[in-house]
Amino acid sequence: MDDVNFAVLGTGGIGRRALDVARHEPALTPVAACDRNGVAIDRDGLDVDELLAATEGAVASDGGVAAVKQHGGATGVAASTQAEPTGAPIEDVIAASEGIDAVLVALPNFEHDFIPRLAERFADAEYAGVLVDVLKRSRVIGLLDEREERLEASGITFVCGAGATPGFLTGAAAIAAQSFVDVEEVEIRWGVGLKSGYEDNRGTVREDIAHLDGYDIETARGMSDGEIEALLDEHDGVLEFEDMEHADDVLLERAGICDAADVTVGGVLDVRSEEKPTTTTVRVTGRTFDGERGTNTFALDDATSMEANVNGPALGYLKAGIRRQRAGEYGVFGPAELMPI
Amino acid sequence: MDDVNFAVLGTGGIGRRALDVARHEPALTPVAACDRNGVAIDRDGLDVDELLAATEGAVASDGGVAAVKQHGGATGVAASTQAEPTGAPIEDVIAASEGIDAVLVALPNFEHDFIPRLAERFADAEYAGVLVDVLKRSRVIGLLDEREERLEASGITFVCGAGATPGFLTGAAAIAAQSFVDVEEVEIRWGVGLKSGYEDNRGTVREDIAHLDGYDIETARGMSDGEIEALLDEHDGVLEFEDMEHADDVLLERAGICDAADVTVGGVLDVRSEEKPTTTTVRVTGRTFDGERGTNTFALDDATSMEANVNGPALGYLKAGIRRQRAGEYGVFGPAELMPI
Repeated sequence: MDDVNFAVLGTGGIGRRALDVARHEPALTPVAACDRNGVAIDRDGLDVDELLAATEGAVASDGGVAAVKQHGGATGVAASTQAEPTGAPIEDVIAASEGIDAVLVALPNFEHDFIPRLAERFADAEYAGVLVDVLKRSRVIGLLDEREERLEASGITFVCGAGATPGFLTGAAAIAAQSFVDVEEVEIRWGVGLKSGYEDNRGTVREDIAHLDGYDIETARGMSDGEIEALLDEHDGVLEFEDMEHADDVLLERAGICDAADVTVGGVLDVRSEEKPTTTTVRVTGRTFDGERGTNTFALDDATSMEANVNGPALGYLKAGIRRQRAGEYGVFGPAELMPI
Repeated sequence: MDDVNFAVLGTGGIGRRALDVARHEPALTPVAACDRNGVAIDRDGLDVDELLAATEGAVASDGGVAAVKQHGGATGVAASTQAEPTGAPIEDVIAASEGIDAVLVALPNFEHDFIPRLAERFADAEYAGVLVDVLKRSRVIGLLDEREERLEASGITFVCGAGATPGFLTGAAAIAAQSFVDVEEVEIRWGVGLKSGYEDNRGTVREDIAHLDGYDIETARGMSDGEIEALLDEHDGVLEFEDMEHADDVLLERAGICDAADVTVGGVLDVRSEEKPTTTTVRVTGRTFDGERGTNTFALDDATSMEANVNGPALGYLKAGIRRQRAGEYGVFGPAELMPI
């Protein structure tokens, strides 16, 4: 593949690490990054070291960026010598988007239609390229689908749910399913110990809380930092999730792997330990063409962090999206649809 | 993806099962099949039931087809009511190849350059489409690369090593590597119990024997059936392989996953039991961007047969090849290169 340049919207936990991991990918050049208060654009490639230093510690409780770090009065991206302060960062990136091959959306999706509406704004500006996000919720996929025609008209290839789960594990499930002509069950169970700490992953933790019994996205969004910390205390820092509304289900169904109803996602999050509270596994059960039933498994080493398992796959799916976009395949794609299945 | 039609060269163990598995893939229509003595072509789609019945038991000791089953004096494909007898089956398929999207090469590769030369013949005929094979040996990839320019000029996308290993497991390794920015080791260990029996997998077994210490492809090819059976007796039907020359190594290297030298392939074949003598596993060890070392693993259930694990992936890679070919990406591709990495 020729060189690919990309922008990152958001320099919270995911956005910063995507920039970090991309340093190991010679084909990928970051040319734009923004947060709420600043935008940095350099078509020859951003100085990632400087940008990471400027944004270090600047992760807000909402997963965006707030006034934690200050350089000459500016905070977050705006503190970078490469950046300009702005009140309209996304507009600024959209205005500069011609010639940007891909945009990684590393913003939390606290309103279900936030990312779908964001995609629409790129389409309104006639952006032709790839959008990638790491969204989690099943219902968001439907909201993207509703906008598929507009994305297609603009020449946008939208790769949704391209983080760890859905994303890495959905893709692994699609591969594990290759032994079978009929997939009966996909069980995804994740374990996350926050190596990079709660403080550096506030958006992610808040989004996860919305999956707990008795909570939803609105209540989680409305919680104060103190309330979140009290909830974490109550659970000794360990949150367990069953039957999560994770888009792995609809994304596997749209790739033709199995019915959404046959997919279950659960996990355990420990915000106080680097150690994973449980091993992340994918179990795919099906029938082979010759009449046997079996379960193929994929397991991630406990030593691999959530951060590593989100960002490697996200950049891989970004490149796969570029290939589709250049082949004229526009619209909405899930990770499993990008697998050779 | 639009409908894809395909031809199968060879109706030995792999070819027949590819036709069988393809019945579960609505997007795939088999339109041609041949063996040494017959060729069947129907652009509306072959009657697979009839063809499988006609070729049943007709697996020759060389993995091709010999006079085992007879219908009205004809044997193998020629025994099918859909077929014509021929002395030049491959030429016949090449002559009919315009409009055939993909050709699955399910012929044993007893001469290292047999499949590369076969690809050349398709290129000489200006075939524009996908060729897929399930070859195993590392050195064949180099012979294909030497012909890449001719394949490109013709419009051929050649997907090589697209069976179980290399193929399924190489692809799984590429996915498992996504946690890491530096892959240090890939260990592939396969177990095969011949559910479909030695008689139905003679070509595969003979090719495997060539990997044993003291044997090579020439000696294995020159062995009589009696000699092979004596060798199997000597080992109680169980053959163990270490450090095999399996193309997983060069195929992972060309996809940029790791150095070929960091890949090891071994396995155990039991020709007398349906039970796998060992579980098929892929172990990928590497370093994450945040400095941890870990090993991700992929394991196939012992209940999944070699046949299931070859043919599902082969057809998946065939479809991925079609996508590349239609996007104008010609040349030689390994399975890992078709992953979203």
